Parts: sequence; C-alpha cells; structure tokens
Amino acid sequence: MTTHDPDSLSHAEQAALGSGADFWSTKQVGTIPSLTLTDGPHGVRRQVGADDHLGIAASEPATCFPPAVGLGQSWDAELVGKVGQALGAESRALDVDILLGPGVNIKRDPRCGRNFEYYSEDPHLTGVLATSWVSGLQGTGVGASLKHFAANNTEHDRMRSSSEVAPRPLREIYLRAFQRVVQQAQPWTVMCSYNRLNGTYTSQNHWLLTQVLRDEWGFDGVVVSDWGAVQDRVAAVAAGLDLEMPSTGGTTDTQVVEAAEAGTLDSAVLTRRRSDGRARREGGGGPGDADPAFDPETHHALAREVAAHCVVLLKNDVVDTAPVLPLTAGRSLAVIGNFGQTPRYQGGGSSHVNPTRVDVPLDEIRALADGAEVTSAAGFTTDGTGTDAALRDEAIRAAGAADTAVVFLGLAAHQESEGFDRDHIELPAEQIELLEAVVRVQPRTVVVLSHGGVLCLAPVVACAPAILDGALLGQAGGGALADVLYGRVNPSARLTETVPVRIHDTPAYLDFPGEHSHVQYGEGLFVGYRWYDARDIPVTFPFGHGLSYTSFSYDGLELRSAADGITASVTVTNTGERAGREVAQFYVAKPGSSVARPPQELKGHAVVTLAPGDSERVTVLLDRQDLAYWDIRADRWVVEGGTYEVRAAASSRDIRATGTVEVTGDDLVLPLTLDSPSARR
Amino acid sequence: MTTHDPDSLSHAEQAALGSGADFWSTKQVGTIPSLTLTDGPHGVRRQVGADDHLGIAASEPATCFPPAVGLGQSWDAELVGKVGQALGAESRALDVDILLGPGVNIKRDPRCGRNFEYYSEDPHLTGVLATSWVSGLQGTGVGASLKHFAANNTEHDRMRSSSEVAPRPLREIYLRAFQRVVQQAQPWTVMCSYNRLNGTYTSQNHWLLTQVLRDEWGFDGVVVSDWGAVQDRVAAVAAGLDLEMPSTGGTTDTQVVEAAEAGTLDSAVLTRRRSDGRARREGGGGPGDADPAFDPETHHALAREVAAHCVVLLKNDVVDTAPVLPLTAGRSLAVIGNFGQTPRYQGGGSSHVNPTRVDVPLDEIRALADGAEVTSAAGFTTDGTGTDAALRDEAIRAAGAADTAVVFLGLAAHQESEGFDRDHIELPAEQIELLEAVVRVQPRTVVVLSHGGVLCLAPVVACAPAILDGALLGQAGGGALADVLYGRVNPSARLTETVPVRIHDTPAYLDFPGEHSHVQYGEGLFVGYRWYDARDIPVTFPFGHGLSYTSFSYDGLELRSAADGITASVTVTNTGERAGREVAQFYVAKPGSSVARPPQELKGHAVVTLAPGDSERVTVLLDRQDLAYWDIRADRWVVEGGTYEVRAAASSRDIRATGTVEVTGDDLVLPLTLDSPSARR
Repeated sequence: MTTHDPDSLSHAEQAALGSGADFWSTKQVGTIPSLTLTDGPHGVRRQVGADDHLGIAASEPATCFPPAVGLGQSWDAELVGKVGQALGAESRALDVDILLGPGVNIKRDPRCGRNFEYYSEDPHLTGVLATSWVSGLQGTGVGASLKHFAANNTEHDRMRSSSEVAPRPLREIYLRAFQRVVQQAQPWTVMCSYNRLNGTYTSQNHWLLTQVLRDEWGFDGVVVSDWGAVQDRVAAVAAGLDLEMPSTGGTTDTQVVEAAEAGTLDSAVLTRRRSDGRARREGGGGPGDADPAFDPETHHALAREVAAHCVVLLKNDVVDTAPVLPLTAGRSLAVIGNFGQTPRYQGGGSSHVNPTRVDVPLDEIRALADGAEVTSAAGFTTDGTGTDAALRDEAIRAAGAADTAVVFLGLAAHQESEGFDRDHIELPAEQIELLEAVVRVQPRTVVVLSHGGVLCLAPVVACAPAILDGALLGQAGGGALADVLYGRVNPSARLTETVPVRIHDTPAYLDFPGEHSHVQYGEGLFVGYRWYDARDIPVTFPFGHGLSYTSFSYDGLELRSAADGITASVTVTNTGERAGREVAQFYVAKPGSSVARPPQELKGHAVVTLAPGDSERVTVLLDRQDLAYWDIRADRWVVEGGTYEVRAAASSRDIRATGTVEVTGDDLVLPLTLDSPSARR
Repeated sequence: MTTHDPDSLSHAEQAALGSGADFWSTKQVGTIPSLTLTDGPHGVRRQVGADDHLGIAASEPATCFPPAVGLGQSWDAELVGKVGQALGAESRALDVDILLGPGVNIKRDPRCGRNFEYYSEDPHLTGVLATSWVSGLQGTGVGASLKHFAANNTEHDRMRSSSEVAPRPLREIYLRAFQRVVQQAQPWTVMCSYNRLNGTYTSQNHWLLTQVLRDEWGFDGVVVSDWGAVQDRVAAVAAGLDLEMPSTGGTTDTQVVEAAEAGTLDSAVLTRRRSDGRARREGGGGPGDADPAFDPETHHALAREVAAHCVVLLKNDVVDTAPVLPLTAGRSLAVIGNFGQTPRYQGGGSSHVNPTRVDVPLDEIRALADGAEVTSAAGFTTDGTGTDAALRDEAIRAAGAADTAVVFLGLAAHQESEGFDRDHIELPAEQIELLEAVVRVQPRTVVVLSHGGVLCLAPVVACAPAILDGALLGQAGGGALADVLYGRVNPSARLTETVPVRIHDTPAYLDFPGEHSHVQYGEGLFVGYRWYDARDIPVTFPFGHGLSYTSFSYDGLELRSAADGITASVTVTNTGERAGREVAQFYVAKPGSSVARPPQELKGHAVVTLAPGDSERVTVLLDRQDLAYWDIRADRWVVEGGTYEVRAAASSRDIRATGTVEVTGDDLVLPLTLDSPSARR
C-alpha cells in the first residue's frame, strides 16, 4: 500500500476520498487505492452481483460462525479472538479490506430486533469480548468497524429516532464498551449509527465523533457512516465523519467542495480527517492481493467447537434417579420440533451470511446416538401457520415411544430480524402447548431453544426438566448441540442477558421503542441485571447463569488494592466427576456510594478448564478505570475512594464468596460555578 | 383600592413594586398600597414579631384545617371550597391579602418531605380540588398563590436541583393541575419554585413563566418568587417574574433600574409585568381594613366536619360475627399509642399553623364512649427513643383488658417535614412490634394512622383487622376520628396516593432524590397508579381506595360523546343499612392508542350521599381537553380520535362498570420538517 500526503490533495480529491465509489468500496484517488468493506460480522458477506444491502442478492459462501448473541454466551475472550482471526482469513480470501463489525450496542430491551448482533446487556462483558474480536481480526491485516456508534438500541424508526440519554448512563452503559474497544484494540474504523443522540444525528454529532471519540479516547482511524446514515454530508464532515457510504454518485462530494471553497466548511478539518483516516490502513493488505481460499472444513470445525462453548445449560433436573442430561448413547430418542430439522442459526438482515454448509441437528444427533433409534416429528411449522392436530399427534406419539424427547423450540426468522422490533417476548403458543403435551407423555424431555432475542421462559421452565439455550449458533450449531446433548462437550456457557419473568418487569418496558422519533432512556443506569437487582425483582434466569454436567467450588477469595485496580484471586475446584469449564465472575459493589449505583456490576471474569478434582487459582485484575463513575459535575470519570465489595460468583445471583477492599479515590476538584454552594448568596 | 397607571411610574418605582418591603409585605409606591402575603395554606400563618420564615416565631392563632394530604382524601370539591372560604375569612380578619397556597405539585415519590402539602399523585384530582380551593378563597377577596411552579418534587437540594422532565410528562403530569387552576380559577398569583426545570431556574425560565403561563394559559396575575428563589433578579424579570420575595433591601431593585437604563432589560417588559400584576388586586380588600375577628368555634366545627370526610377506612374485617368498626358505644376500649394523646395533625415547615385549639383523640373518644371505660397507654414515645418494656407491657395489659383496642400509629414531626426527604417509608419498628403484641391479646384491634407521607402498610395489614387512615387531619382531627370510630360519621374518604407493597416498587425509586443537582424523571408519564397499572405491580392499597360502613352498587353506565367531551352517567345505589357518601370515579382508557398511555387515567369523579336503599343517577362530564395527550411533534394538546373506554369505579382497582364511546379526533397537521418522512431523501 502506498503512502500519500493528504495535504497535497485538492478539495475535490479530499471530498472524493470521503464517499463510496459504489455500494461496497471506496474510490481510488491518485495513488490511494480503493478499499472493499463488507457486511458481517459473524461471517463475511461478500456480495456478488447487484448492490444490495438487505441480503437478497447472493453472496460468496463463507463460514457462518455464531452471531454475537451466541458467541457472547461463551464469555471466552480467547475463543472470540480465534473467531476474529478466522474471519480475517476469510476476508482476505474474499478480498475484503474491512469487515463491518463488531456490534457493541447494549441490549437495552429484549424486543430490539437487532439484539442478536450484539453481545450483552453488560458493557464490561461486551467490551472485553469485542476487544478480543477486533484484535483477532485486525491481526490478520483486515480492519474492523466498531458499530453502531452510538445508543442505537431499537430498530423502530431507527433512521430518525433520537435516543435521549442522560450523561451517566450514556457514559457508563452505552459508550463504555466503545471506549474500551477503541482504547484497547484501535479498530481501523468506527461506524456511526442511523439514529440521533440527544437530538443530533450521530453522523453530525461533533461531540460524539470528535470530542469524545478522537479527543478523549484518542481514536485515529476512520469514522464511516452506516449505509445511508448521512443526512447532511457537509455537517457530517464538520462533525468528524470521514467516509460516507454508500456512493451518492458524487452529489455530496460536490457539496463538500462547494462548502470548503465558500469557507462554510473549514478545509483544514477536511484534510485532517482524511489524514487521520488513511493512516490506519498501512497495516492492512492492499486491494486485489487476496489470499488463497480458506479451508471451509477447518473453519466449520472451528465453528462447531466455538458453538458448543456457546450453549447454556439453563436447567437440568433429576428425573427418576439421574439428571436428564447428558443423554445416554444407545437409548432411543425422539427429536421433536421443526427447528431440529430446519435449524435457525443466524439472524435476518444485513448480517445474513451464505454458509458454506449447515449442520442439521437431527442428523448430528443420529450420528452420536450409537445406533439407537432416533425418530423425529416436526410438531409445528415455522411459517406462521402454527401446528395442526396431525403434526401434534405425531409428535406426542414419537415422544411417548422413545426413552427421551428433545424438543426444539424457538423463533422463526420472520419473527425477529434487523429492521423491526418484536412487540412481545413470548414463544408461539402452539409451541408451548406442544411442549406441555410432550411432557405429559415423556417426563425425560429436553428443550433446545433457538432465538435471537430473549424469550419469556416461565412456561418452559414450568414443565421441562432440562433446557439448553442455543440462542443462534451459526452453521455448525447442529453438531455443537449434539456434542452437548451427549456430553462430548460439557456445557459451560453463560447468559449474557437476564431472562425476565415477564415483559412488564423489563427496565425499558414503558419507554420502548419510543414514539414520535424520541426514545427516553428513563431507566438510566439500571439496564439488565442492574435493574432487577436494584428493584429486587425475581427473574427466571439471572445474568451470568449457566449450569454444567460437573460442579465447582470457590474458595479463598483474596483482594489486593493497587494503583491499577483491584486484584482478585480465588481458587476454583472441579468438585464433580467430569472435566468442565467454569466462568468465574467478579461483581463489584460500592456500599454507601455518594452517587447512585447498581447494587453490583460485573468488572471481571475468568474462564478455567478443570479435570475432576483439580483446582486452579484464578487471578483477575478489576481495572481501576472500570471502578469509575462518570461525574456530571466534573464531566469526567472519577474513582470514588473507600471500601469496595467484590463478589466471586457463578452467576449474578449465585455469589460464592465476598470480600472487601479499600481503594484510594481520585482527587476531585470541582469547578466553581454560580451554582456551587459557596457561590450562592 | 386606588387605580394607577403603571406607564406613569419611573423605572425606580416599577422596580420597587417588584420586590418586598420586608419579609411578608410589598412596598407602597405612590397611591399603590402595600400588600401582605402570608404562609399557609391549611391555615393562616400570620406572624407576629420578628421576620422568620421557618415557623419558629410565634404567629397569630388561626384554625388549622386538614393539610392538603388529608383534605385531598375527601375528594370533595365542594367541601374544599368551603375550606377556602373559611381561610379567606380568617385572612381578612388577620389583615392578610394573599394566602400562599394551594400547593399542587404532584406526589412523584412517597419520600418527598413536602408531600403533605400536596393533594395527590394524580393531576386531575389535584387540579379539580385546588380549583375549588382557589375559588372559595378568592371569592372572599383574598388572593391565592398557586405553587410551587413547577416540577418541585423533592426537598433534597431544592435550591439548585434541576428537574429533568421530558415534554409529555411535564405537560400531562406536572403542569396539568397548574393549567387547570389558572384557566378555571384565575389565581391572583402564581409562585415559582426554588428548583431548576430542565436546567433553568424556574424564576428565570421564560418558557415557563411567559410562554406557557401567560401566552398559552392566559394568566394575567402576578408571578411571585418562592421566598429566596431568585438567583438573578434582572434575568427573572426578563423571564416573567413580577415580585421577588422577601425584601433584598433594595439591592436587586437597583440592579433592575440599571439594567433597564442600560437597555439590557427591556423596560417595556418591566412596565407590562407590573400592569398585569396589579390589575388582579382590584377585587380584593384594601390593606388595613381587616374584617372583624372570625369565630374560632364555628371554624373549629367546620374543621371537624371536614376532617371526618378525610378519614379513609382502609380495612374493616369481620371479627367473630361483626366488622370491627364502627365501635359500639358502651363497650370498653383501650386507646394505645402516643398519637392518641399527643396528636400529629399537621406538617412541619413554612405551613405550620398556630391552632386555635387542638382536639385530643383520647378525650374525644371518651366523650362518645357513652360512659364505658376508656383506658389509655402511650405504648411508645415519639421523640426518637422508641419504646421500653414498661410502656409496651402497660399497653398490652390495657389492650387485653378491654373489649376493643384502638392503636394510634404514625410518624412523628421530626421524621418528616418540609426541608428534607425521607429515605424510607417504614413505620418505626417499635410501633409494628407493639401492634403485633396488642393484636396477639386483642383480636378486635383498630389501627389509626397519622402521617404526612405514604407508609409501607404491609406489616399493619398483615395483623390488624381494621385500619383508619387519617393522614394529617388538622386541629379537629381528634374529634373527627372519634366521629368515624363510633359511626357518627360514615367514612367515605379515598386514597389520593397508591400505597405500594415496598419502596422498591415505586416509580421513581432509582431516581430520587437525584444527585449532583439533577433529578431525572425517568418514569415519565407513569407516576402513581399509572406505573403500578402499566407494569402490573401488586399494591397494598390502590389509588382511590376507601371503604364504608355501608355498600354501594353501580348500574346502568351510559356514555355519550359530545363536542365538550364524554358525558358518563351511572346509577349509584346504597345497598347497605347506613347512610353513606360514595366517591364514584371515572377512569378513561384509550385502547390501541398511537402514543404511549397509562392503562387508565382518572378523568372525573362525583360525590353522592345516599340514605340506605336510595339511588341517584350520577352524571359527570369527562372534559374533552382532559382526554388530550401532549403531541411533541405539533407541540400542542391533541385529542386522538377513536374508541375510548370509560370505567365507573369505586377505586382504580375496583372497576364496577365499563363502556366504550367514539370520540372525534382533533385535526392534526404536523409541521413539515427535514425529519418528516416525506422530506427524507
């Protein structure tokens, strides 16, 4: 890739660099080459043929890894980094320079149609996993695009809606993952979102794109618009946007040139932006020098390994004398539910990947059944027509005749997608009715869930003794589920979102998806488990929950305070009879804080794999910066001094050990204003 | 009172008219006389001696009527109007021109220390009652001061705190009662509050004081500051403030004159304000011509009659074969609890009245006991030292020895007041323990509650078979409670606030009282029952709840739609064996509304008194304007067309009849902006 001197470019060349050549690529200007960007990010959506943003046009085959909703459930930064690397290899093979991800928006409300593209309701977990993803991807010379910046938490009216967010939740919840990824992984690009933030389009939001992103966080890459997110290119350039996508056929380039020459747009800004932006590309591969094709079988195997680490064992009751799971090979099985034969494994919209192949759960289960009979029955359709008596009766007969039933339930593709929000979180009633009928004839019933957004699981929990939550697992999900069902992989994933008892209990219930192009973020800081904990609301499954086929103990919690944060150590022991992976979670509380705080917040976690009887001393740094709150008086992060409580936990509501530690506070000199107490007459 | 031409006044005279002469009066300027304003408003606090805003200096004796928390429970506009008239007579007798009330702030959170000065969590009920109070008062030639304008819903940091309220809740909840009173009762003055509203001090808020209050609502009276609420007199005058109180010794008058002469303050504004303001006074009595003294005995009798209508019968279970209440004269009684001997009957702070006399509940009960033995025991102290074994044992012995126990529980004066907020809503633990001990020996136990703010009553409900809620009843509360206990008055009052199961369930739980001088009104429209209904949260007692010693049926609901609103008619029948008063409530729902709405909202009510077996056809107009929501696109009230549901109810959760009616919507032509769908490229 050639170097260039942006100062030597004309206004026209500078403007041309700031908008697309077509739908997916930038312009070549002089010696500065064109770049190809493409959708993803759980696979490379390299389109062939006509420009089309909605996934209708065909795209090249690529490995469909678990979408973020599934991947996040691994809680495993190392694994996520491996996925990033594999995506980089596929991007290079498909001649893609920038893969448009990761999405790090916070899951504010379970109804948001795009939640499946995001990691969690928690900004710390989101930030840690996305940082690893970006590092993995960019280590291969392919750029990431951190999106959607920012506070884009609903699909409804997303092209106009203004997210009205107070400073503390904006900083502590909605921007925090972005800040971590920018500062720790230096993504080549950040993608501004469609929506407005506190009244101003993010594409035109100087505070967001320049003051916060560049000046505070030190971002030195390119700010690219979401496709079609620019309302006013000149205003956007002035605010800090570098690249408008897709092409506008030169219309907005002309506007920029005219504004620069009329002096209404500072041409120094134009130059600086381009300079900043292109600098990041030098580590990347050049255009046209695609790597050799990736090996789809190797990547499919990786996708299966990853997917198996993304399956959450929600419940596993003892029926007769043993837990329902893992299944015993050699015993007969009935696989019920349409998703067992036609898996739901990714979400709809711009991220939709053309998979290299798709594992069918029924086939993968049969492959591991050790010759035992595995019958199947669809039970219901997923085309919206529901079930009929014949389908239901067939399923009940199959379930009753087998030793165990595995019932695949979930949401069909048309029930959730980018582009619209759900208006409830229920499973289709016919699926619940089918499940209840199956359980009546078959007490050994396992439910397997496929869905992009959180579901109300109370009716499932009420009747099913065992539940596996696959969320969306990508193209190898079928094999991964078979691995977990039969115990070839011991489930170890954890929920990244709270499962509420009912939609009425959710934090944004009365403010979602907003109206008349405004969304009030009325719950403030109290998103996800922060809300349920603070209001002491019962939940069906808490954030961080996930069972195992073995068990773990936590002992000897030690806390040490240092300049860079709190070091927490705890000994995790596998107290069961199988090897297993444990996600040890560390929640921090600040009793008696001078500011409103959630009762506890995740500030660290560690993944440990242990043979039966083995122990490991786990040590995690709870970063000092992560202890800070955003002080609205000083307009900066502040670490409050005093006693902090650290909880080592198997989930947000399964605290295994608690300790306290003293932390020295930041010096905080508040600006004296007319409103300061001492200044009042 | 002489007329005057404000245009003929000098800047100095105009400025002088706009600030106090001292703590409680305005200046005489030329022929324009001085006026006396004084605190209240549930009695006239005419101070004698030194200037003192905090109620320490002695004030003239005046009748202490029930504070708004009690008065509101009557739900009786006619009765409230009578109180206004009586207060007018006392004001005139005490040479007071303007009585500083009513307070119509919405009870956003039960912890607000000043809630006892306000009517309700509902803006409709608040507005209707306050309108009647103002009309009653002003009909005597004494001016009201509608306060505290606006969104002053916490005592914490009230001199600086900014209430951050979105447009819809601001209009539909926090300003709606102000609007009704201004438009229907034309109060002579409106008092701006201490706090900031969306960042600007209300005393300097041109949008609030001029655009909304005068231009939209047509207010033509005087805007007076709360005492000490002016931060910047020149900015306040420019925003629409007419009168700064108390005196600043001429300092700010000089600032105004200098600004007017320097041209930084438009002197036309100065003139106009004074002209508007003084015009209202012409209906009033002149200074110095006080009426003869009022008759304290007549007013005490009125205070007793009113107070009896303010007592809510929360619960009245059958014990053995009969409900615990009313008491049977001639049977022995134990009166337990310190508040039976030292009543709590008004709140602390600027509204504190020096009563002409105070009824002691124990004495009044004895007077109606028909010679039966009435013992008493303090049970606990209210000085913060709680109880001791001797006090408790004495109480238990007395309770066990009598036929029935009446236990007075509540909050002491030091536990709630203007100037601070509570941090919980529990009764003192020693009171609950005493009650439980009493009930163990005496199943026929009645609890009588005295308190200014809502209490968590779950532990009381769990053990007491009968509960009377007196809130704060004024100086004649003791007699009123005796009247209700013995059935001389059949209780008919209703809760004006929801009693939540626990503080965690309350709408503003996580946003109260704010921090760093900002309060986020995150619950939006969903205040009080609007929240519990929308989120389907159980409550201990719902808004509008109140029992009777008789019973009522509702039949034949008819709805008619007309240009001025919905006319709702229903036949209420006394189906019991005692005369009684019923508060028939009308809640409106808009199924399938295009905007977020509470599931139901009170839009009308009627009070009807019926002999046993009698019926009355009640007809209420649900005003068209009250059906409107505030449209943020058009920035105005809009009545949505379509089907409305009207519920005739005995409480918000005791719906007796439901009907639907079609309403023609307003024409709504939205301004075309760049953000309008058709304007987007």
